[in-house]
Amino acid sequence: MRALLRILAAALTLAVTAPGRADEGMWMLHQLPELDAHLRAMGLQLSPKQIWDPATNTGLASAIPWLGGCTSSFVSPDGLIITNHHCAFGAVQMNSTPAHDYITDGFLAAGRAEELPARAQRVYVFKGYDDVTAKVRSAIAADAPPAQRIKALEAREKELVAGCEKSGLRCRVAEMYGGKSFYMFRQLEIRDVRLVYAPARAIGEFGGEVDNWMWPRHTGDYSFFRAYVGPDGKPADYSPANVPYKPDRFLKLAPAGVKDGDFTMIIGYPGRTMRYRIAALVAQDTEFGYPYQIKLLSDWMAVLDERAKTGKAVEIKVASAVKGLANAMKKYEGMVEGLTKEDLAGQRRVEEAKLQAWIDADPARKAKWGDVLPALDAQAARGATTRERDILVRYLPRAGSLLPAALTIVRWSQQSGKPDVDRDLGYQARDERTIRMRLTTMQRNLDLPTDRAVLTYFFRRAAALPAGQRLASLDAALAATGETGDAAVAALLDEILGKTSLTDEKTRLGLLGLDEAAVAAKHDPLLGFAIALRRDMQAIEDERKTEEGVLIELTPRYVDALAAFRGTPLYPDANSTIRFTDATVKGYSPRDGVYNEPFTTLPGVIAKCTGVEPFNCPKRLVAAYDKGAFGPYVAAPLGAVPACFLSTNDITGGNSGSPIMNGKGELVGLAFDGDYESMTSDYRFSNRLSRTINVDIRYVLWCMDYVDNAHALMREMGVEPSNK
Amino acid sequence: MRALLRILAAALTLAVTAPGRADEGMWMLHQLPELDAHLRAMGLQLSPKQIWDPATNTGLASAIPWLGGCTSSFVSPDGLIITNHHCAFGAVQMNSTPAHDYITDGFLAAGRAEELPARAQRVYVFKGYDDVTAKVRSAIAADAPPAQRIKALEAREKELVAGCEKSGLRCRVAEMYGGKSFYMFRQLEIRDVRLVYAPARAIGEFGGEVDNWMWPRHTGDYSFFRAYVGPDGKPADYSPANVPYKPDRFLKLAPAGVKDGDFTMIIGYPGRTMRYRIAALVAQDTEFGYPYQIKLLSDWMAVLDERAKTGKAVEIKVASAVKGLANAMKKYEGMVEGLTKEDLAGQRRVEEAKLQAWIDADPARKAKWGDVLPALDAQAARGATTRERDILVRYLPRAGSLLPAALTIVRWSQQSGKPDVDRDLGYQARDERTIRMRLTTMQRNLDLPTDRAVLTYFFRRAAALPAGQRLASLDAALAATGETGDAAVAALLDEILGKTSLTDEKTRLGLLGLDEAAVAAKHDPLLGFAIALRRDMQAIEDERKTEEGVLIELTPRYVDALAAFRGTPLYPDANSTIRFTDATVKGYSPRDGVYNEPFTTLPGVIAKCTGVEPFNCPKRLVAAYDKGAFGPYVAAPLGAVPACFLSTNDITGGNSGSPIMNGKGELVGLAFDGDYESMTSDYRFSNRLSRTINVDIRYVLWCMDYVDNAHALMREMGVEPSNK
Repeated sequence: MRALLRILAAALTLAVTAPGRADEGMWMLHQLPELDAHLRAMGLQLSPKQIWDPATNTGLASAIPWLGGCTSSFVSPDGLIITNHHCAFGAVQMNSTPAHDYITDGFLAAGRAEELPARAQRVYVFKGYDDVTAKVRSAIAADAPPAQRIKALEAREKELVAGCEKSGLRCRVAEMYGGKSFYMFRQLEIRDVRLVYAPARAIGEFGGEVDNWMWPRHTGDYSFFRAYVGPDGKPADYSPANVPYKPDRFLKLAPAGVKDGDFTMIIGYPGRTMRYRIAALVAQDTEFGYPYQIKLLSDWMAVLDERAKTGKAVEIKVASAVKGLANAMKKYEGMVEGLTKEDLAGQRRVEEAKLQAWIDADPARKAKWGDVLPALDAQAARGATTRERDILVRYLPRAGSLLPAALTIVRWSQQSGKPDVDRDLGYQARDERTIRMRLTTMQRNLDLPTDRAVLTYFFRRAAALPAGQRLASLDAALAATGETGDAAVAALLDEILGKTSLTDEKTRLGLLGLDEAAVAAKHDPLLGFAIALRRDMQAIEDERKTEEGVLIELTPRYVDALAAFRGTPLYPDANSTIRFTDATVKGYSPRDGVYNEPFTTLPGVIAKCTGVEPFNCPKRLVAAYDKGAFGPYVAAPLGAVPACFLSTNDITGGNSGSPIMNGKGELVGLAFDGDYESMTSDYRFSNRLSRTINVDIRYVLWCMDYVDNAHALMREMGVEPSNK
Repeated sequence: MRALLRILAAALTLAVTAPGRADEGMWMLHQLPELDAHLRAMGLQLSPKQIWDPATNTGLASAIPWLGGCTSSFVSPDGLIITNHHCAFGAVQMNSTPAHDYITDGFLAAGRAEELPARAQRVYVFKGYDDVTAKVRSAIAADAPPAQRIKALEAREKELVAGCEKSGLRCRVAEMYGGKSFYMFRQLEIRDVRLVYAPARAIGEFGGEVDNWMWPRHTGDYSFFRAYVGPDGKPADYSPANVPYKPDRFLKLAPAGVKDGDFTMIIGYPGRTMRYRIAALVAQDTEFGYPYQIKLLSDWMAVLDERAKTGKAVEIKVASAVKGLANAMKKYEGMVEGLTKEDLAGQRRVEEAKLQAWIDADPARKAKWGDVLPALDAQAARGATTRERDILVRYLPRAGSLLPAALTIVRWSQQSGKPDVDRDLGYQARDERTIRMRLTTMQRNLDLPTDRAVLTYFFRRAAALPAGQRLASLDAALAATGETGDAAVAALLDEILGKTSLTDEKTRLGLLGLDEAAVAAKHDPLLGFAIALRRDMQAIEDERKTEEGVLIELTPRYVDALAAFRGTPLYPDANSTIRFTDATVKGYSPRDGVYNEPFTTLPGVIAKCTGVEPFNCPKRLVAAYDKGAFGPYVAAPLGAVPACFLSTNDITGGNSGSPIMNGKGELVGLAFDGDYESMTSDYRFSNRLSRTINVDIRYVLWCMDYVDNAHALMREMGVEPSNK
């Protein structure tokens, strides 16, 4: 422990600059006026209202849609969307076959008619948000028991959402600071999304898992979609008759890019941070949560890798899942390494001790907050008693294709008969379309032997859970086989996968109209098992609601105490709502004696081309480079086309594909990753070490211009090609 | 091939600065007047004569003795010598026992009387050199056949050396540019050398094999010897009555060190470079020579590692050998990687084609040099036909302790009866002392099971040599066992190691007085085998002499042609003679997007302390750091004590321990390594990528002052300690 603190001391000694204000902060748009003076000084040339004006519901932010897990930008008046290659990867994969391997070769639509449907993809256009804290919190009776609090809160939220969605928009209540504030976010949901252009994987994913989270980076992580709506201009399901969506705003490109030290900003939808997580939970994550999940993900990936070896068709089916697992695993490994090295739990413990002392030092403060930290600690200790089970159960609805489908169908059958406002979140009438879509598109990647292999792994893990954390449903089902151990798992899978009819798309969709009794009456063994499993899961969710009910009272008080103690305004943790982060183009020193420069270059891409995956540069890229024509994309200070660059923006997963913009709000690149040293930034942002990795717009344009001849798209974005 | 050239093109594009003159060049001291203007402009404040004045045989260079494989500096009027820890490692190891583990703990003599004899160590003080080209080359008759040329040349050299050594100095004729010039070097050989101070291995070798050849580097690679002479001031064998040697000159320390961009110079004894090696030989090295030796070294090291596991005593005995093997292996691996990546053979081929075209374009040039390159190529092709055997035979005199001793004794017995001038180099009367010392000190590391394991490996390799390259002696000895395959090797080793008396030190030394017949009459099976093996080796050496006889005529002509073609003066390849290299303190970009800064720091050392070897910082270093006292050793621009720094000096193995000096000739650090990217610099120096890694004198002083309390030594060097 002392050694670890010493490392930190050393790290602090090494810090060269002491920034005026850290670039930390994923700010809500209504907080921008508070930051205005600072932002102007840094180089922002837009007013807060130009970014977003709540009075008129207009501004730059409307050009930046959420993709559900990723961020994107409109870049033409005809609904052209730019995002990361890894965000479009699912759509590329869905459209690939062994004969048309768009994953490897890339895809460029010859014209609008040739754009390929990205059926699982949605585009959510930002339409503004309102503070609904008073309306939400007033639903909670002062003396309500914990579980009741959450039920009341959810009911009120659903009520408000239903009211909001009468506008035809998609609405969501998002909780900030653990329930201190609530906001209603409005989005236009576009359902006809098409793949327009993706470069070859060896550009879009150049460096693959080797370079993932790493600097120096040379990945052309960009792709294009187009949003379509019905001829009436309203969102519609895919139809050849649909027309391109006309966004209120789209981003202009800045082909001149940025240079070292320039101001940058990112607007996007960061998924989740834990910046206010208490020490006890950080310690649990570090010591158990991540290590346990790393083992699980690594085993799962090994199962899929084995399956991929059986042929190209299976390889394509599991490609997207493998990519996701590998990415999560690397992140968790980095987290454990970083959290351990920095001893973040220990540091938080020190800060909490100071906070408690400060609270206790004043009778008024003690009365107000004296019980908060001890109560939060007690809550954390309670949660740890079922930690293996809780993690495993979270993964079951993602384990393969068929069990997740059965769980969805069963839950829908339980919920669909109730009044809409009483139904579980995600299982209301408004969710039916998404669920149908999921039950349809899953057919594409369905592979029964893969499902069996994955469930074999998960059932064996679940069957080995310690006493007090057992899943009664699984125990019963295994016992019913008359076998024991691995033989019981095999027999159960023979039964539930061998005899299910859910492999048929029509059957799955047909089940959606039925209530639970009718579903049970089908006597499909997989559905029967899912009904029992849902019972276990429901009990766990009820326990969780009780915990949340306690936290919804404690956490806001903790945040209040922390804000008062620190004496600074706080920004809320990321939760997939729209956020703003300002920054500077800037390198960093990952360790003593080494400086990671802020830019990489196209010659650096070429120098990495070994011909061996993931460094197997496409021949047409190498040929284009060898011609020596680089157009206007050369950055003078580098003497070369920049490939990627670093900025101090504060982002996390969900920000992938986010536009990184100059002070005028022009697109200079796309955020696509963080550096290895920023893996722990979900817990704590480091101005010295946390960096966003962006693909430079000049590299995107050079590839479009000289490698892929995507000239029509360039012109659509207002950039005249040079390679004529 | 194209891909490789492309990488080079990319590398060239990345080069940021175009230096006026490259820092390439290991210059002979008499070449300094030619460089004077340039050196003054760069920052040198000394005249060539202050560095070395051949008229008076005085100058800075006399403060810089050769250690036989390493370089060192006198740093006090009492013969105190500073060099690298890895150069003193053998002496530390020789004095270590499981009870007194100076390797791990370090050693600091409490006073002069406690200094430990470094019995295998010699100190060679530079005393000047003369051009003897005319005298040497006149020995070769114009029409002499190749083998005869070399014999005549060697006879003349020995004659000249004998004449020179009448002065009491040690003399050596060194050949430059493959025999174009010859110089007689004079050195005072000091035989009583003592270990004064070595830091703990975890300082002196911090980072070990992991960091070897790497940047960032944090190794405190320094140690101290003291030279002693007889009370009469003349070199003498070890005796308690001896007194410290008083050098003509010693280096002053510059505790203020250097900063980024400063001028630096290094004087030292670089071992071997191949800057003028022809393409065909570079290709042979890349494709066969290094890969074959890497396999051999790695197997050998595995054998020693296995032995080291059997106990601390054996571990200590093999430690120095393992270190040497590991270092060589890493270097060869880096060579293969670098030579392949840069396609140096291909590049040389291109240059040679141009050279040939230039020669052929002019009748006079063609008459003079037209045949040189084809003849060199033919020679290279001939050499390749016995490549496996030639490499293996080079390693046998180093395989363990006993076979090398037997080979030495036998060769001595064959040579000692001849007139001195006819004896082989290294086996003349002047060499007897060194040979006796070797046969004595080997006892320290002798371990019969280790010898057996090493010879088992080498004999098996030799027994598997292809037809046409067989060793008749080994074949006969194996056949004589009546066994075949591995059983024959085992039986042979039973015989020659099991029944030899060479394990006894007195016996070995006693044999030195006998002629070959008397040695044979001992009927010691190991000596008998060595006599037969020497016959094979002698035949191989005779073949080699014929080759050399051809080259001694061709190479000077090749160098002349090359110099005329390039139009620039050339410096000779390194050959363990004294050289000068000037440079700048400077970082470099190892790859696109990364910059290796010129300095590392003490906080960086601490940040690397994982507690696990080779990053197991000594407790007293960590404790000293934690106290936060750094005296005057902090470098203002870094805000910390510098640990190591980079310079563009052109060095190679043999330069280890060399003083790196500022423009006034003051010591600012010790060279101890090159960066990974400079591994191929023995073939070609790259101003962009080749760097010398130096330990900063400020880190040395901080360790002496605050960690090891080596205050008396500091005062002896004229530096007042701060930690009082």
